[in-house]
Amino acid sequence: MIRDSFRTYCQEKLMPRIVMANRNEVFHRDIVSELGELGVLGSTIKGYGCAGTTYVAYGLLAREIERVDSSYRSVLSVQSSLVMHPINAYGTEQQKQKYLPRLATGELLGCFGLTEPNHGSDPGGMETRARYHPASKTYTLNGSKTWITNSPLADLCVVWAVCEDGRIRGFLLERGMKGLSTPKIEGKFSLRASTTGMILMEDVEVPEENLLPHVSGLAGPFGCLNNARYGIAWGALGAAEFCFETARQYALDRIQFGVPLARNQLIQKKLADMLTEITIGLQACLQLGRLKDEDKAAPEMISMLKRNSCGKALDIARQARDMLGGNGIADEYHVIRHVMNLEAVNTYEGTHDIHALILGRAITGLQSFTVGK
Amino acid sequence: MIRDSFRTYCQEKLMPRIVMANRNEVFHRDIVSELGELGVLGSTIKGYGCAGTTYVAYGLLAREIERVDSSYRSVLSVQSSLVMHPINAYGTEQQKQKYLPRLATGELLGCFGLTEPNHGSDPGGMETRARYHPASKTYTLNGSKTWITNSPLADLCVVWAVCEDGRIRGFLLERGMKGLSTPKIEGKFSLRASTTGMILMEDVEVPEENLLPHVSGLAGPFGCLNNARYGIAWGALGAAEFCFETARQYALDRIQFGVPLARNQLIQKKLADMLTEITIGLQACLQLGRLKDEDKAAPEMISMLKRNSCGKALDIARQARDMLGGNGIADEYHVIRHVMNLEAVNTYEGTHDIHALILGRAITGLQSFTVGK
Amino acid sequence: MIRDSFRTYCQEKLMPRIVMANRNEVFHRDIVSELGELGVLGSTIKGYGCAGTTYVAYGLLAREIERVDSSYRSVLSVQSSLVMHPINAYGTEQQKQKYLPRLATGELLGCFGLTEPNHGSDPGGMETRARYHPASKTYTLNGSKTWITNSPLADLCVVWAVCEDGRIRGFLLERGMKGLSTPKIEGKFSLRASTTGMILMEDVEVPEENLLPHVSGLAGPFGCLNNARYGIAWGALGAAEFCFETARQYALDRIQFGVPLARNQLIQKKLADMLTEITIGLQACLQLGRLKDEDKAAPEMISMLKRNSCGKALDIARQARDMLGGNGIADEYHVIRHVMNLEAVNTYEGTHDIHALILGRAITGLQSFTVGK
Amino acid sequence: MIRDSFRTYCQEKLMPRIVMANRNEVFHRDIVSELGELGVLGSTIKGYGCAGTTYVAYGLLAREIERVDSSYRSVLSVQSSLVMHPINAYGTEQQKQKYLPRLATGELLGCFGLTEPNHGSDPGGMETRARYHPASKTYTLNGSKTWITNSPLADLCVVWAVCEDGRIRGFLLERGMKGLSTPKIEGKFSLRASTTGMILMEDVEVPEENLLPHVSGLAGPFGCLNNARYGIAWGALGAAEFCFETARQYALDRIQFGVPLARNQLIQKKLADMLTEITIGLQACLQLGRLKDEDKAAPEMISMLKRNSCGKALDIARQARDMLGGNGIADEYHVIRHVMNLEAVNTYEGTHDIHALILGRAITGLQSFTVGK
Repeated sequence: MIRDSFRTYCQEKLMPRIVMANRNEVFHRDIVSELGELGVLGSTIKGYGCAGTTYVAYGLLAREIERVDSSYRSVLSVQSSLVMHPINAYGTEQQKQKYLPRLATGELLGCFGLTEPNHGSDPGGMETRARYHPASKTYTLNGSKTWITNSPLADLCVVWAVCEDGRIRGFLLERGMKGLSTPKIEGKFSLRASTTGMILMEDVEVPEENLLPHVSGLAGPFGCLNNARYGIAWGALGAAEFCFETARQYALDRIQFGVPLARNQLIQKKLADMLTEITIGLQACLQLGRLKDEDKAAPEMISMLKRNSCGKALDIARQARDMLGGNGIADEYHVIRHVMNLEAVNTYEGTHDIHALILGRAITGLQSFTVGK
Repeated sequence: MIRDSFRTYCQEKLMPRIVMANRNEVFHRDIVSELGELGVLGSTIKGYGCAGTTYVAYGLLAREIERVDSSYRSVLSVQSSLVMHPINAYGTEQQKQKYLPRLATGELLGCFGLTEPNHGSDPGGMETRARYHPASKTYTLNGSKTWITNSPLADLCVVWAVCEDGRIRGFLLERGMKGLSTPKIEGKFSLRASTTGMILMEDVEVPEENLLPHVSGLAGPFGCLNNARYGIAWGALGAAEFCFETARQYALDRIQFGVPLARNQLIQKKLADMLTEITIGLQACLQLGRLKDEDKAAPEMISMLKRNSCGKALDIARQARDMLGGNGIADEYHVIRHVMNLEAVNTYEGTHDIHALILGRAITGLQSFTVGK
Repeated sequence: MIRDSFRTYCQEKLMPRIVMANRNEVFHRDIVSELGELGVLGSTIKGYGCAGTTYVAYGLLAREIERVDSSYRSVLSVQSSLVMHPINAYGTEQQKQKYLPRLATGELLGCFGLTEPNHGSDPGGMETRARYHPASKTYTLNGSKTWITNSPLADLCVVWAVCEDGRIRGFLLERGMKGLSTPKIEGKFSLRASTTGMILMEDVEVPEENLLPHVSGLAGPFGCLNNARYGIAWGALGAAEFCFETARQYALDRIQFGVPLARNQLIQKKLADMLTEITIGLQACLQLGRLKDEDKAAPEMISMLKRNSCGKALDIARQARDMLGGNGIADEYHVIRHVMNLEAVNTYEGTHDIHALILGRAITGLQSFTVGK
Repeated sequence: MIRDSFRTYCQEKLMPRIVMANRNEVFHRDIVSELGELGVLGSTIKGYGCAGTTYVAYGLLAREIERVDSSYRSVLSVQSSLVMHPINAYGTEQQKQKYLPRLATGELLGCFGLTEPNHGSDPGGMETRARYHPASKTYTLNGSKTWITNSPLADLCVVWAVCEDGRIRGFLLERGMKGLSTPKIEGKFSLRASTTGMILMEDVEVPEENLLPHVSGLAGPFGCLNNARYGIAWGALGAAEFCFETARQYALDRIQFGVPLARNQLIQKKLADMLTEITIGLQACLQLGRLKDEDKAAPEMISMLKRNSCGKALDIARQARDMLGGNGIADEYHVIRHVMNLEAVNTYEGTHDIHALILGRAITGLQSFTVGK
């Protein structure tokens, strides 16, 4: 039900804006408020103005919005899984009351600062530091984060930093804090309908009540990422479904050598491959969602499906683009946009290869991330 | 439950025999009786001495037996889906009572004659003919069938032939009928632990009570094939699971350059790929089984998963063989046997490409089997 | 020698302009004049101000310029193979003297109109018509062409049209002719540093001396395409080499988990695959160039290498983009640009699948382009 | 010329024997003598009864014989590159005169003992030891070698062992030496027309004049392997050519749905892919042969083409087998035999992955064979 009304919103309100938004690299800030109004921000959270849906429902929402564009799903994921989730899971009651309702309506936009310029796939190498000052009861943060969805516009940044005890902790930084800047990254050819930037912190002073107290170590950001990756696993297949449908319709409409393209074996084989992967991928996501709702989903299961959905969706989008021939490079046919988007989606929150090694470790009991020098 | 006891049988009774059976091309006829005793022949049929299990259970049985060898699963599929199923679905009460109980115990072994030497993927080109003689109330059958699992040993052959009205009908031929011979095909390098042969019919006279009266046209054999393909979809993944497990254990045990092979990224990536495909493939089979138990499974769904399971299982077996290095070509490591078997499994009951075109037709509404001259 | 000085030009003059040209969809018209000055336009033509190089040399030039961007190689290909070549091969002495020297210097820019909106891969379906008027000794052209590189800026259009005798012939249309318009196609996410448009002809009156007299039928445009495809086969591998080199350097420079990315097996395997395909692809192009210089190159050989180079280059660019992680979507790292470009390059002048069918026909003697209805 | 007469021999004398030889695991020893008579054993060696051909010619011979069966090419490779080559390159004048002429005629059959049971891809882990006894001027060898082509029948074994100074050296062991045994490996499903075994050495006493004096360290066996791998690069493509030709002819002869299989797009695409890889692979081998004849071939070039040819040939053979449908598993159609053979060929003398890492090291300057514990 929530899916059907959300699909209508996505198709009627987002779809008409996306071509120009992508072409001109424009993020419409009011989309966040619209999503808030529809009750889909932080939807799995109980209370604090949130909808309290199942994880299966969250997955279906991610699929619908990414059917339009991965940028919009990214915004939804960041707000829900990477900003609202850690406040709900690791924050104080005061923090929850202060931020969650305004994040749920979209009045506030959040971002999540984990990745650093020199440590893409290795958050253990984090360089951002937080030093505590007992006198002022504040932390001073220094460091930089990059490839941060929403950062140039965000009102609130969940930032992860290494404290003096060597442990990683999360902080809530508000726009306007002195020393905090969020420059935009230019020249992106992926996720162009969302804004991506850096988070630069030069002696940013953060009151201690802005520390997330209930987690320390990599468990904090990893808990958020698992949540987000689950949504990506669904969302990427939504993009794949759009590409499949578009290629199918194009092949039916386009006449070459006197018959529809769709009459050709080479075309039919591609469609069969695409639909097979979408079907079995969605079945697996559904099963994972049910396990997640029963709190039985292991992180490795999420790795497996984040990796599978993204890798397969990228392949499907590429096939679809190929099937559209010359028209496939024109943005009005949408598919090239998904091809570009899915490059990022396949890379962020754990690349295809990193998730292979996460799975490999679970399968063998041996880690192969680090190699000798 | 039935799965667990059947797994024990497969591992304890079949596994020790398989290397030499495959090496020397020997089919142990007594395995059929053992399967009968365990109640797994025609297990989904209600009554007539059959177990009356769900289709999910049938799938689990196919997976367990193909974990050992595709030859044995082939024998199970033929007896259950291609011989007992058509008698149960299209036969007279008398035929059911006469044959089903003895097929269920394995006292009788059956085979299924559809494919002809010149018409592998195109049963519509059938050349075998049945002519009716009102005087003797018999049909005379002429023609030949090839690549018939079990035929050299079978007591009963379900044979499809074109009648004088141009429609295809099924007949029950018994060993010993005059003009019927079933020569063995030599030099097979796949499914060597089962016997494959031809069915040659020269003026074989068949009493009219041996006609399957309740079906005509390709719907008859296709109904059987759908049933069998469903089992193959599960079974092929059982073979894949065995190959995955074997490669995993080998990689853990084998030390190269001072560490287990399993410590290498290239190995872990292969294992991750294998396990992903097995996991999502099995989830899809489970869902299909549930739909089948609710009588909601469309033939195209079965095509999709027969194709997906077989193609993926073959890839997985090839990867596993590669991971075993030189040892991978020795039959005592089992994997090369699965590689060879899965070549046939990927081909029979609809090749990978034919199922692509079946799916393509369902997706586009246009058939691409036939091309202009 | 010509390659080395041209490489210097490409790296020193084109490379610094390309990021912004691609980002903002700008084609610098003066590049054509620079290419003219360097003697690389129509370089294989003898006389008329052209350099008269070998085809091997032409291939090396294509490789160098596409190392920077496929847009620039496209401009070179169009001017050389699709505009100057047909004038030289099929034109009158007067036409050669009038146009070739000014095309060779880049004073004039040309374009080539074959593809039509409804007939991407099937030029036999051409709808553009030319009607002859004996009185005025002119032809009237009506029709439209699309996806025409250079058309919005071109001074001269080589346009193919069906004459009243049903045969296809080539015409030289000059900018400014009444009824001729060349609107730009917006929203391209491929080859953004060149301009692409349509050629719309409404009763364009063309003097008969602008007809290319020495060819009729599809042999005319196909001869041009063969020439251009040969250059593409080389050029695409130039783009692939750039991507390989960039990924290699990135993997050496980027430290993750304490070692360069390049120390990881998964990275090394990708580099090995990339270099292998580049190496054997270039060897084959070199051999083809030698055959072309001896006039022994069959069209099917060119199809084979156009297809191989483009398909492999696209794969290599995708792999390289993946290896650059998040940075891989930023245009300043160049690789995402090649990924987008090669989508078009793999599609135009015969898609990957169309060339498969061209090869298939040569191999089997049976065409499979047309299928029954 | 030598190629043409050798092709005649291969097709007329070897081809008729191969089906039964493979089916029954029989190696015909007299083939070695026939090869000797034709002058193809150790053909690149000058003098000592050898033909003194170019390396290009050697490559062409390997291609012709592997067109029949990889077993026979393996025998040729072992005798020429792994037995005669090291004697010629590293042996004394006396050793050359004693062994080369008789190896050249095929009177003697040789084998090459490098790989050990626990060290497939890591010859640096060698456990076989040679201890020198000054009194008797002999070495005592202890250890075991496995997967040794020809060993059960060989008259002469080139064995590599670690000496007391820790360096690896080569020894010539003759059948009949005390403590030397060469048991056959049973149950091979690859290269069944040649014999494979172990070399077991228990206190085998070897006179010091049987030491190969002019090399020490891994350079010795690696020099041999490079030589052999060069031949494999050619040979594997010969097998691929056979598979391509067979699939092509089958597709032309086999009528389905009223037209030859070859009329189908899915078939033509496979044929196009196959022929492309064969063509560019052979071009690269030819170029490598010319470099080798000029003594300019780097080991990494050989790694690249051994890996490329074997991997691609295996893919091609699998595709061909698939195209033959059910008939593709019957040995009389030959292709399944090549599929099985190429599994070993892709693995031995450096697996596909090991050569990727060899190339990766050459590309990056960083080795990734060893990983941390």
